[in-house]
Amino acid sequence: MLRVPYDDLYAALERAMQGLGFEPDRAAKCARLFAETTRDGVYTHGLNRFPRFVESIANGSVNVAAEPTKIAGFGALERWDGHRGVGNLNASACMQRAIDLARQHGIGGVALANTNHWMRGGSYGWQAAEQGVFAICWTNTLANLPAWGATTPTLGNNPLIIAIPRAGGHIVLDMAMSQFSYGTLDAYSKRGQPLPVDGGFDLAGNLTKDAAAIEASQRALPIGYWKGSGLSLVLDMLAAMLSGGLATHQIPLDPTRESGISQIFLAVDAGTIAQPQELSRIADGILDSLREATPADPGKPVRYPGAQTLQLREENLRLGVPVDPEIWRRISDSSSS
Amino acid sequence: MLRVPYDDLYAALERAMQGLGFEPDRAAKCARLFAETTRDGVYTHGLNRFPRFVESIANGSVNVAAEPTKIAGFGALERWDGHRGVGNLNASACMQRAIDLARQHGIGGVALANTNHWMRGGSYGWQAAEQGVFAICWTNTLANLPAWGATTPTLGNNPLIIAIPRAGGHIVLDMAMSQFSYGTLDAYSKRGQPLPVDGGFDLAGNLTKDAAAIEASQRALPIGYWKGSGLSLVLDMLAAMLSGGLATHQIPLDPTRESGISQIFLAVDAGTIAQPQELSRIADGILDSLREATPADPGKPVRYPGAQTLQLREENLRLGVPVDPEIWRRISDSSSS
Repeated sequence: MLRVPYDDLYAALERAMQGLGFEPDRAAKCARLFAETTRDGVYTHGLNRFPRFVESIANGSVNVAAEPTKIAGFGALERWDGHRGVGNLNASACMQRAIDLARQHGIGGVALANTNHWMRGGSYGWQAAEQGVFAICWTNTLANLPAWGATTPTLGNNPLIIAIPRAGGHIVLDMAMSQFSYGTLDAYSKRGQPLPVDGGFDLAGNLTKDAAAIEASQRALPIGYWKGSGLSLVLDMLAAMLSGGLATHQIPLDPTRESGISQIFLAVDAGTIAQPQELSRIADGILDSLREATPADPGKPVRYPGAQTLQLREENLRLGVPVDPEIWRRISDSSSS
Repeated sequence: MLRVPYDDLYAALERAMQGLGFEPDRAAKCARLFAETTRDGVYTHGLNRFPRFVESIANGSVNVAAEPTKIAGFGALERWDGHRGVGNLNASACMQRAIDLARQHGIGGVALANTNHWMRGGSYGWQAAEQGVFAICWTNTLANLPAWGATTPTLGNNPLIIAIPRAGGHIVLDMAMSQFSYGTLDAYSKRGQPLPVDGGFDLAGNLTKDAAAIEASQRALPIGYWKGSGLSLVLDMLAAMLSGGLATHQIPLDPTRESGISQIFLAVDAGTIAQPQELSRIADGILDSLREATPADPGKPVRYPGAQTLQLREENLRLGVPVDPEIWRRISDSSSS
């Protein structure tokens, strides 16, 4: 495994963004989001995603110069248009706007239309938590998940992020509505390993742990069967209706041309109605009770969402951030030329 | 099956509430919530729940006279104390307050501490949708669900409700974080039928469809395994931290004494930033795309959350509301005496 210092990864990404035509401050921000995603161990949506990101710019799906604008607002609720700009920059700007609204009103909501893939959704949860703010945000996606009872995909996997600020380490849940992503299915399929739990249907319509069979049927499973199916649907409805943007069924099915998606950013500034000590006491009490649960496997204590991120972040900052050698070579070559 | 006219059910419940010491207007509201829950086909949380509700009043867990009060507020965000009052009345009042805040600020949030079981969570989603408002609300519960990787329950099943108003019929998702409730497990177990999908672990630690084996191990499964486990945890954290109330691990484990729980009510008035026609068009487009999905079973078209409720409501208003004969006899006897 090739590991590179975080600062080198960031610098190479920043130069690469500048080479793609980003303004300097936007290049810096976008590079930071990609680099932090890799640093935090979400390798699928950091550096490894960069080649597809470049392709989306080249084919016109992502406009590197577009900045989001507010198109309607009432009190603590706003509608923004992302103008098909850079997904992570749009998302970060709209989460920041939701945070600012929460500072003014206790709670704030921003609905964003016409944006692009936000890469790691968790980024915007960490962004809020680092500012001491609670956040709930989600995105719709292209159709990649059959509704419960259907064989054809009409739902998105619509990742949902919930972030809770805590002095002793933030809690950030980042979960898609599919039990496994197609990336994960592909990894199991290539290794010839069974999934740990059922991940979808085979071509005969039976639930299976066989990743290759699910890739063949394209019938991945929503979390909780009918439940995640319903949750995915309502998240899409909220995102498209509140933003006035596209719903899952309207988003281009080619992943490099998945564009014009809709997102929601909600922020709550609990500091407006509560004391920090009270918030810490309650959060720590809940995590203590989780730690006191009897583990099914004595060697594996029960974890909370975000705990692994903090561990990988520390490890990757200390040892260097793992990178795909080929992608790293291309980006560090081109960006230093 | 015994069916009684909706108005008779409502009248008997209203008299029963008065007999329990409710003020007249509160008796009417509480009876309406119980009756509508039964009318809508959620039999577990309507009339059939009434005997346990009476027990909770008798043992002092529920105070029929207590009304919720605001204890802190900042802009569109408020904290309320339920004073261990009647769960459905407290929840209905706090959802109404969140709706009022959304009318003023576009979005509103109310965190409620020290309340009691809200019966059917969907009630508060329908309440918002009937007023043209989007809602997200949830409750924590006593510990009844092991976290992923644990054998002892430290999580609640924490029902989550998401409601979307729509001229052609509201969409209301009402889902607990457990794949099956213990009530459902009990019904399968009594019929000796296997669950449709894995519902938990047996005593040997294997996933199983055997409801009796799950009742024996008390290891019900969160939706999506590790995913629902994480979602349940963060919903509890948000509810307890924002309200300043109890977290799941602090709630009494006896179901008739489950008291002092915490809830969140979020409301969004999309009418402040969007035209009704636009909202209808987007919602209808999404439901159309769902209808166009190929059903796995040709006889079973894909449904959306809330569709079955509308169907059962119509049927039960037309034919009479199904009631448990013994519970109905007791309530209609005592309330007419």
